[in-house]
Amino acid sequence: MRVVTKEGAKVAVVGASGYAGEELVRLLLTHSHAEIAALTSRKFTGKRMSEVFPRFGKFSLADTFSFSDFEPARIAREAEIVFLALPHGISVEFVRPLLDAGVRVIDLSADFRLRRAEVYQDFYGKEHADPALLAEAVYGLPEIYREKIRDAKLVACPGCYPTSILVPLLPLLREKLIATDSICVTSLSGVTGAGRKIAAEYLFAECNESIRPYGVPKHRHLSEIEQELSAAANEKVMIQFTPHLVPANRGIISTISADLQHAEAIGAVLQNVYRDEPFVRLLSGDQFPDTKNVIGTNFIDIAWRIDPRTNRVVLLSAIDNIVKGTSGQAIQCMNLMCGFPETAGLL
Amino acid sequence: MRVVTKEGAKVAVVGASGYAGEELVRLLLTHSHAEIAALTSRKFTGKRMSEVFPRFGKFSLADTFSFSDFEPARIAREAEIVFLALPHGISVEFVRPLLDAGVRVIDLSADFRLRRAEVYQDFYGKEHADPALLAEAVYGLPEIYREKIRDAKLVACPGCYPTSILVPLLPLLREKLIATDSICVTSLSGVTGAGRKIAAEYLFAECNESIRPYGVPKHRHLSEIEQELSAAANEKVMIQFTPHLVPANRGIISTISADLQHAEAIGAVLQNVYRDEPFVRLLSGDQFPDTKNVIGTNFIDIAWRIDPRTNRVVLLSAIDNIVKGTSGQAIQCMNLMCGFPETAGLL
Amino acid sequence: MRVVTKEGAKVAVVGASGYAGEELVRLLLTHSHAEIAALTSRKFTGKRMSEVFPRFGKFSLADTFSFSDFEPARIAREAEIVFLALPHGISVEFVRPLLDAGVRVIDLSADFRLRRAEVYQDFYGKEHADPALLAEAVYGLPEIYREKIRDAKLVACPGCYPTSILVPLLPLLREKLIATDSICVTSLSGVTGAGRKIAAEYLFAECNESIRPYGVPKHRHLSEIEQELSAAANEKVMIQFTPHLVPANRGIISTISADLQHAEAIGAVLQNVYRDEPFVRLLSGDQFPDTKNVIGTNFIDIAWRIDPRTNRVVLLSAIDNIVKGTSGQAIQCMNLMCGFPETAGLL
Amino acid sequence: MRVVTKEGAKVAVVGASGYAGEELVRLLLTHSHAEIAALTSRKFTGKRMSEVFPRFGKFSLADTFSFSDFEPARIAREAEIVFLALPHGISVEFVRPLLDAGVRVIDLSADFRLRRAEVYQDFYGKEHADPALLAEAVYGLPEIYREKIRDAKLVACPGCYPTSILVPLLPLLREKLIATDSICVTSLSGVTGAGRKIAAEYLFAECNESIRPYGVPKHRHLSEIEQELSAAANEKVMIQFTPHLVPANRGIISTISADLQHAEAIGAVLQNVYRDEPFVRLLSGDQFPDTKNVIGTNFIDIAWRIDPRTNRVVLLSAIDNIVKGTSGQAIQCMNLMCGFPETAGLL
Repeated sequence: MRVVTKEGAKVAVVGASGYAGEELVRLLLTHSHAEIAALTSRKFTGKRMSEVFPRFGKFSLADTFSFSDFEPARIAREAEIVFLALPHGISVEFVRPLLDAGVRVIDLSADFRLRRAEVYQDFYGKEHADPALLAEAVYGLPEIYREKIRDAKLVACPGCYPTSILVPLLPLLREKLIATDSICVTSLSGVTGAGRKIAAEYLFAECNESIRPYGVPKHRHLSEIEQELSAAANEKVMIQFTPHLVPANRGIISTISADLQHAEAIGAVLQNVYRDEPFVRLLSGDQFPDTKNVIGTNFIDIAWRIDPRTNRVVLLSAIDNIVKGTSGQAIQCMNLMCGFPETAGLL
Repeated sequence: MRVVTKEGAKVAVVGASGYAGEELVRLLLTHSHAEIAALTSRKFTGKRMSEVFPRFGKFSLADTFSFSDFEPARIAREAEIVFLALPHGISVEFVRPLLDAGVRVIDLSADFRLRRAEVYQDFYGKEHADPALLAEAVYGLPEIYREKIRDAKLVACPGCYPTSILVPLLPLLREKLIATDSICVTSLSGVTGAGRKIAAEYLFAECNESIRPYGVPKHRHLSEIEQELSAAANEKVMIQFTPHLVPANRGIISTISADLQHAEAIGAVLQNVYRDEPFVRLLSGDQFPDTKNVIGTNFIDIAWRIDPRTNRVVLLSAIDNIVKGTSGQAIQCMNLMCGFPETAGLL
Repeated sequence: MRVVTKEGAKVAVVGASGYAGEELVRLLLTHSHAEIAALTSRKFTGKRMSEVFPRFGKFSLADTFSFSDFEPARIAREAEIVFLALPHGISVEFVRPLLDAGVRVIDLSADFRLRRAEVYQDFYGKEHADPALLAEAVYGLPEIYREKIRDAKLVACPGCYPTSILVPLLPLLREKLIATDSICVTSLSGVTGAGRKIAAEYLFAECNESIRPYGVPKHRHLSEIEQELSAAANEKVMIQFTPHLVPANRGIISTISADLQHAEAIGAVLQNVYRDEPFVRLLSGDQFPDTKNVIGTNFIDIAWRIDPRTNRVVLLSAIDNIVKGTSGQAIQCMNLMCGFPETAGLL
Repeated sequence: MRVVTKEGAKVAVVGASGYAGEELVRLLLTHSHAEIAALTSRKFTGKRMSEVFPRFGKFSLADTFSFSDFEPARIAREAEIVFLALPHGISVEFVRPLLDAGVRVIDLSADFRLRRAEVYQDFYGKEHADPALLAEAVYGLPEIYREKIRDAKLVACPGCYPTSILVPLLPLLREKLIATDSICVTSLSGVTGAGRKIAAEYLFAECNESIRPYGVPKHRHLSEIEQELSAAANEKVMIQFTPHLVPANRGIISTISADLQHAEAIGAVLQNVYRDEPFVRLLSGDQFPDTKNVIGTNFIDIAWRIDPRTNRVVLLSAIDNIVKGTSGQAIQCMNLMCGFPETAGLL
């Protein structure tokens, strides 16, 4: 593996024309330790980036940079870190050639988030195309797997819903503060969560003044959520999960409740675990999370309330689905992998 | 009590300048059996209605009608039915003089929704100002109390969250299909749910691109929700409830889950109870409720999903918070009280 | 031509699955003089209307009604009035067979709005497919062509921008109160103005928090706007017109300014012409038009200001682009054609 | 005057709790040459910044920093540059004490934008409180007054509408390419343009699904717009200006048209003047400005179209009203005043 100096890394973004890819580019353009070496987009090959994304005009790089086709050998010559911002089921084809060529890969798709190929098949409805690689991948949630991420060759970044659910819940499960069979989660997502998918249901006039649940009862993200919850609890955990689409561009609120086993310890455990985490903010007093406070940032805001009437805890979290939920988290992982300050490019 | 013929009723709206009052007026203007006899608004006394609400210009009535002060004796001479669209804690002062003067009252506030004054005090933080009247009031949910509403002198219209939660849940509790201690509810509301309250947190730029929970863990609406759930279950029921504010003008989605006791009966029970209800729509197939399908209407849309993984049922409902959640329901009650077709003015 | 009694008309909507068609159906369902006899949609043939549009569930008609294919002979047997809610360039193929079969046609497309085939070719970039019919068509703006509409066999409903611009401007041009070569118009439209077109630029996250001009300098609607302005002024009129897309579902604001020739007469002329128009509201005092006051209605709200600094008049208008701008206006035309009260189904 | 080294400046923000002040803080927190030395807010004196603005939690500074009262002597000891983000009419009281104490002032209000006190009185309805200082102030539009800003002791930052209108128009007036008596401007603004003003008309449900003009015919910003246009044209220029409020948080589109005198030179003049400007982007080809491309940035995007039918030019511009329209521009001015790279903290 090529040595990446702390001074800076050359990076490539494969699939740079979706919302996740575009946000990666936005963040990388001002990252003082990263230099974009290649951007690929099948759809826009040959076009200058600022043509496709006028918001990048007059950024020096963006003005001159053009999208190219994906050629693993060329990309491996030009970049040390490759971000894959590709649809689920497509990333899997790109990873092995890149790893073989000696680069480290940060995959934003769901393709390498699960440890067991059977679970993938159960939730995604087809065989995993490269199950041997599953063991290589590290789940890219720095708050949990920081040390493993540092040395990983393949990082599988969590989905946006999982990030918002796992960060508040995992410490409570590790410490056995809540009953594992009592967890209910409702999530509310802005519309970019669906990606730049051109479908009638995502047209402005179909989403504006519309609030709607979907994906009940077996959303695909459940597979990785329950994998990580179970690992923390050291027993099989299943949750009730209902996602909703609300008329905002960005942001996720997750509202989680569970039966309490040790109410008095909740606050202390969360404080101990997260007090020094750079991107976890535990809200105090009567503050509630609000997506507008995290939009454009890599923060996750967390509040909690004990309900003495029901003897349950309510955990409330907010993230920007494209930053901490996708591209910001990918950069946080890159920072760890390359030995940069963990907050570089993100604060 | 004055006899109301089926031909038509003279009605008054007290507090006609909030969102609920304005919507009442909008619906009453095209109601073929109701005639607006008086509109009051302390704030706008003496102003023509179409001045205050330009949207009502060139409706014959609205152009000439002016707001007046509240004088119970005069209102009782002019109207047979009086809608009170006043803030909580204010309605209670207006009801007795009106009842004493011989009119029937439909109260849209929370003042008469609870049967027991202690519960009122527990949730609203002060003594009830006229506890003797609580026994007179009928909870204005026609799907449950249709017959009592017909003869009621005082109807207490349910809140918007309660309507969206009670209609799907009550039949399952009555039939003991779900575990009473396992109910989790998350609700998502448009911003009119907060009323026309002038506060920084409801400014456009504070709500747009903002998603946020609030009112956890002991929202006031819990008192009436649990009162009605307990009555249906014939045992004390407590639920976990988390409301959220989302950037839409109107609409509520409630997402309810509970442990199943008899999964196979859910659909049949809901069909039996609601098949012929004029304003309850049970969604079929893979449809999910979407607030945009109920906005401006008095419908409640309900879907349900059995989750075999968790052995829970997920109930999903949608209403327009100002119509079925407030003013439309009030008119449905009036229709029952006056012997009009139940859907008059609402379809 | 079949005689339509004042008691009621049987109507068909061809192309009932776009925004205009859907709104026509919504309005017709509560119209006391119209009965829907047929709905066609190539895309949804055979499906029940309430399946495609869940918002219509439990309306008696909508629940049982299915979309059918377009067969002119059958439609002419079943309906007396046929609304064509089809894309531009498609309607033209449907009109002659229907007229030949003896029904009267209200076309919501641009196909018959222009009197001269050359202008059509200039603005729409292709030859008109049935130029002989242009002479038969009446421009469906009741405030201008009320008498002609009554007897028309083919009504060409104006576009949404034209309606918002012509109603305020035409009286001033007729009375020569403004300079014909000085007219600047800026319009702001909600996104439904683009129809239910599935394209990336109309996705929620591309329109929300986005404000943008488009269609400069030669928007197609200019052709009909200038045709009608010129007819009123009795000389050739050309205007500067810039449309904009703003993040709202519905509504158009048009802001028009022009050099004054007789400032003092503006108010009186508008009052004289429009005082008794059922759907024109002249705002008084310091009121400005606001789309929220006309949404869901067939009103056009108009205000004007004299600017003594520039010696110009500023005319400001608001309509709901799908009601007065499209489907409501079509029903207003039907009411005239059938001898119904002009406001039937619209107030 | 204290010497500011190129290494960095200590700055104070007076009135840091409005939208402009909050955005200044956001931008200053990541500015590599500026250090926040004081933040004042009468309303929040003594509170930590991250309490008032939870979005700033875990930024090192924001977490520990508290708002203080305004004391000019103390502020002058602690800071070299003071930003005044105060309401119009208030700033004027704060400037002289600060200048006397030796600091340089960047004022975001309208108090020092006009050169003549009579014009101030005409448009703001009261006498200017310190007319002698008007001659000291430099209008803070770097694209026009870059050199003067470098040495200014008092910079009066332009309003958001003026910035969007002046940048495209001034070069055309200087070169006499358009007729000075033919300029029509329509502007569309997001709701933060009204500031954090708590009034019913800015509530979410009053702005969402609402489009409306206002401030016709004599908006206050006209005074500074016409002052600068006249200076460029070297003759008195008056324009027709209509602002509109649209349901977005941020962004302004200005649409400007004028009679052409030299159509062929428009593009070349704009290119010559702005090609190397760091924050002016001239859109090419068929691109139109779209506020979403400038949100959060200090760019102004400009397109133009020649309309051969009317012999007019249409200029179209987009800015973020709080960045290039307010706080970003203020920082651009600070960069010039302190000898920092002009784009520092802004790219």
